[in-house]
Amino acid sequence: MTTREECVALDERDELAAIRDEFILDEREIYLDGNSLGPVSSAVRARVIDVIDDQWGRGLVRSWGQAGWMAQPTRLGDRVAPLIGARPGEVLVADTLTILIAKLVGGALELRPDRHVVLTDAANFHSDLYIIEAVCQRAGRPITLKAIDRNNLDAELNDDVALVELTHVDFRTGEALDLKAITAKVHEAGALMLWDFAHSTGALALDVQGANVDFAAGCTYKYLNAGPGGPGFMYVREHWQGVLENPLPGWLGHARPFDFEPDFEAADGVQAFVTSSPSIIALAALDGALDVWNRTSIDQVRAKSLAMTDLFISLVEERLARVFNLYTPREHERRGSQVALGHPHAYGIVQALIERGVIGDFRAPDICRFGFTPLYLRYVDVYDAVEHLVEVMRTGAYLDQRFAERNPVT
Amino acid sequence: MTTREECVALDERDELAAIRDEFILDEREIYLDGNSLGPVSSAVRARVIDVIDDQWGRGLVRSWGQAGWMAQPTRLGDRVAPLIGARPGEVLVADTLTILIAKLVGGALELRPDRHVVLTDAANFHSDLYIIEAVCQRAGRPITLKAIDRNNLDAELNDDVALVELTHVDFRTGEALDLKAITAKVHEAGALMLWDFAHSTGALALDVQGANVDFAAGCTYKYLNAGPGGPGFMYVREHWQGVLENPLPGWLGHARPFDFEPDFEAADGVQAFVTSSPSIIALAALDGALDVWNRTSIDQVRAKSLAMTDLFISLVEERLARVFNLYTPREHERRGSQVALGHPHAYGIVQALIERGVIGDFRAPDICRFGFTPLYLRYVDVYDAVEHLVEVMRTGAYLDQRFAERNPVT
Repeated sequence: MTTREECVALDERDELAAIRDEFILDEREIYLDGNSLGPVSSAVRARVIDVIDDQWGRGLVRSWGQAGWMAQPTRLGDRVAPLIGARPGEVLVADTLTILIAKLVGGALELRPDRHVVLTDAANFHSDLYIIEAVCQRAGRPITLKAIDRNNLDAELNDDVALVELTHVDFRTGEALDLKAITAKVHEAGALMLWDFAHSTGALALDVQGANVDFAAGCTYKYLNAGPGGPGFMYVREHWQGVLENPLPGWLGHARPFDFEPDFEAADGVQAFVTSSPSIIALAALDGALDVWNRTSIDQVRAKSLAMTDLFISLVEERLARVFNLYTPREHERRGSQVALGHPHAYGIVQALIERGVIGDFRAPDICRFGFTPLYLRYVDVYDAVEHLVEVMRTGAYLDQRFAERNPVT
Repeated sequence: MTTREECVALDERDELAAIRDEFILDEREIYLDGNSLGPVSSAVRARVIDVIDDQWGRGLVRSWGQAGWMAQPTRLGDRVAPLIGARPGEVLVADTLTILIAKLVGGALELRPDRHVVLTDAANFHSDLYIIEAVCQRAGRPITLKAIDRNNLDAELNDDVALVELTHVDFRTGEALDLKAITAKVHEAGALMLWDFAHSTGALALDVQGANVDFAAGCTYKYLNAGPGGPGFMYVREHWQGVLENPLPGWLGHARPFDFEPDFEAADGVQAFVTSSPSIIALAALDGALDVWNRTSIDQVRAKSLAMTDLFISLVEERLARVFNLYTPREHERRGSQVALGHPHAYGIVQALIERGVIGDFRAPDICRFGFTPLYLRYVDVYDAVEHLVEVMRTGAYLDQRFAERNPVT
C-alpha cells in the first residue's frame, strides 16, 4: 500500500509540481472538482485586469481593431487547437457549448439531406440531449433522435443515420470512448461524427486529425480553468469549412462585416461560425488560463492524471474494500480524469467530505465524483483525500440528518 | 449661439455631473462612441475583481449556489427590467443579442403556425437580417422574410404576417420609432411584435408594458456600459411565458436541472430561455455597470440626452451651416441618443476627429456618427467636439491621403 511519505516523494519528483503555484488555492482544502469548475490562476486574474484597464479602459472602441478583439475567437481557437490535435484555423471559441452543438447539429443535418436519424447516448449530458432534440424537431424534415445505449452503436448504425453525437468522456462515470474506432465506424455507415469534449479537453490527449473527426465542441471552464460560464469552443474539420453552414449566422461571421451587406455571405474558415462576439473579458480569462500550456504538454498532464487516478482507486480499494462500486474503468485507455464511486449514501458522503475540506461532487442517483487535475493537485492530496474518505465512512458522518433528503436509498 | 461659458454653467447645474466620476476616462479625449461601446466604471472593475478573487477564487464550484450564480441571468434581468418598463421576471440576461433574436423569432413563428411572412426593416442592423433569414429558412414551413421600408409597414401588414421585427432606434440615423403605435398596428393585424433595443436601452425610457410589446432583445455593451461583447438580454411578456418555446433549450432552462432528466421540461418563466450559463465574469461586469442606475433614472438621463443632442445639432448648424446632411430627426420623440451627420468625406472626418481626441465612428456609406451619453459626458464636451469638427472642416484635415481609401465619394 502506498504511504503518505511515498506520495510526498512522488510530488518532489513531479515535473508539474511548480505549476501549482500559478493557481490561487486554499491550502486547507483539497479541490477535486476541477472537472466541474477549474480554479483561478494568477495569469487569468492579471489578463482580465489588463483588458479592463488598458484595452477597454484606455483603448475603448478602438480595441476591436487595435487590440485584436475581432480576431480573438479564432486566435484563441488556435491556442486550444493543439490540445485536441486540430490544425490552426479549425477551432473557434464562442458562445456556450450547448449553442455550439446547435450550430453543428443544425449544419450537419443539412449535409445528409436524405437521412433521417441522429444517434446519441442515452447517458449523455442532458443539455446535449435537449438541444439535439430541439434542433432535430426543427430540421425542416422528419428527423428521429435516438438516444441509445452507446455499446449498441454497431446495431444502430445504418444508411439512414445522418449524424452521431457522443460525449467522449462520460460525465458520470468518467469512461473515455474510443475516438478513432467509433469515428471510423460512423464514417463506414456514411454518417457524420460530432464529439462533445466537455470532459476531455485538457484532461487527455485528443487527436481529431488522426481520428478523422468531422466536428467537435467543448467547454473551457473545466480542465482549461477559464472560469464559470466560460466560452465554448468548436472544431470544424478543414474539409467541411465552406461546406457546413452556420444555422445561426451573425454579423461577425460575415465575409465583410463592416460593409453592412443585406445578405449573409459566410467568412472563410471557422470564422463563419462566429455569430456575435463573446465577452472579451471572458475571452481574456481563457487567454490567461491557456498560458499554463506553454509550460507543459497534454501528454505530461495525462501521465500524471493516470498515476493519480490509479493511486486513488488503489487506496480506496485497499482501505475501503467492497464499500464502493467503482464506475470508472480500470483500463487507462478507457478512463478520463475523474473517478466515480457508487454508494447508496453518495450525497451524504460528498457533503461530509466537503465539510472536511475535500471538494468533490454528487451526481444522481448514487455517484461520488472526484476530478483529478494534475496542474494543481499533488499526490499527497490524493492520499489525504482518501484519508478523509476513510474517516467519513468510519464515523458515519455521511448519515447526518442534514443530508437525509438527498440520501433516500438505504 | 450657445457659448462655451454657458456650457460650463450648464454642467455646474447638472445633477448628473457627479456620476462622471464613476467612469474611467481619458481627460484628453471626448468619447462620443458610447453608443458602440460604453466605458469602464470603477464599479465594473471592482465587481469583476471581487468575483474572480472571492466568488470564483475562494468559493469555487460552491458559488453556483452560494453566490447565486445560477440565478444571475434572471436577477440581472430584473435589474435591467425597469429600464425598459418590464415587470420583474420578464427579462433574462444571456448569450448575445443575435442568439437571443434567434430564440425569440424561432419561438414566435411557432405561435402563428398558419402565417408565412416575417417583416423586418431593410435598414435594420445586418446581424438581425442574417439571423432572422436563417431562422425563417429553417422554420419547418415556408416562411418569407420581407425586409421592407419601415415607413410602408401599414401596406405590408396583413393576415399572413406572423411576426414583425424592428430595431427601435436606427443604428445609422438614430431615428427612434413609435413603440406603442407600431406595436398596436402589428397586433391589429394579428401578428406578434419583436423589438431590438440595442440602441435604446439606457438611452431613453421604454415602456414595454404600456406598449403591449410581446418580445424584445437588446445588448448591454452600449448605453449600459457592461463591456465589449457583454451579454444580451431578452424580454418575454408574462402573457407568453409558458407558451413561447425556447428553440435552443439547455440544461439551465430545465425545470429541475440537477435531476438529469432525459426529456426537456421548461422551467417556469423566462428562466426557460437560459441555455447554458453566460460567463459569470461578464455578468459581474454588467452587475457593476448597472449600479449607476441606483443614482439616477432613465428619465433624468433622457432629458440630458435630448439637451445634448439639441445643443450639438444647433452648434453644428450654426457654425457649419449646410456642410452636413442631418440624418437624425429633429423631433425629440423620434430621436435616440446619437446624431448622424452625412458627408461625402465622412470617413476622413471621423478619422481626423479621432486624431484630435474626439472619438466618434463612421458608418458606410457617408455617416459620421456621434453618441451622446449623459452619464459621463458634459455639455462642454459637446461644445468642444463641435469646435474640433469646425477645425477639421476648416483645415481640410479629413482630406489626408491616409483616409483616401474609405473616402471614395467626392
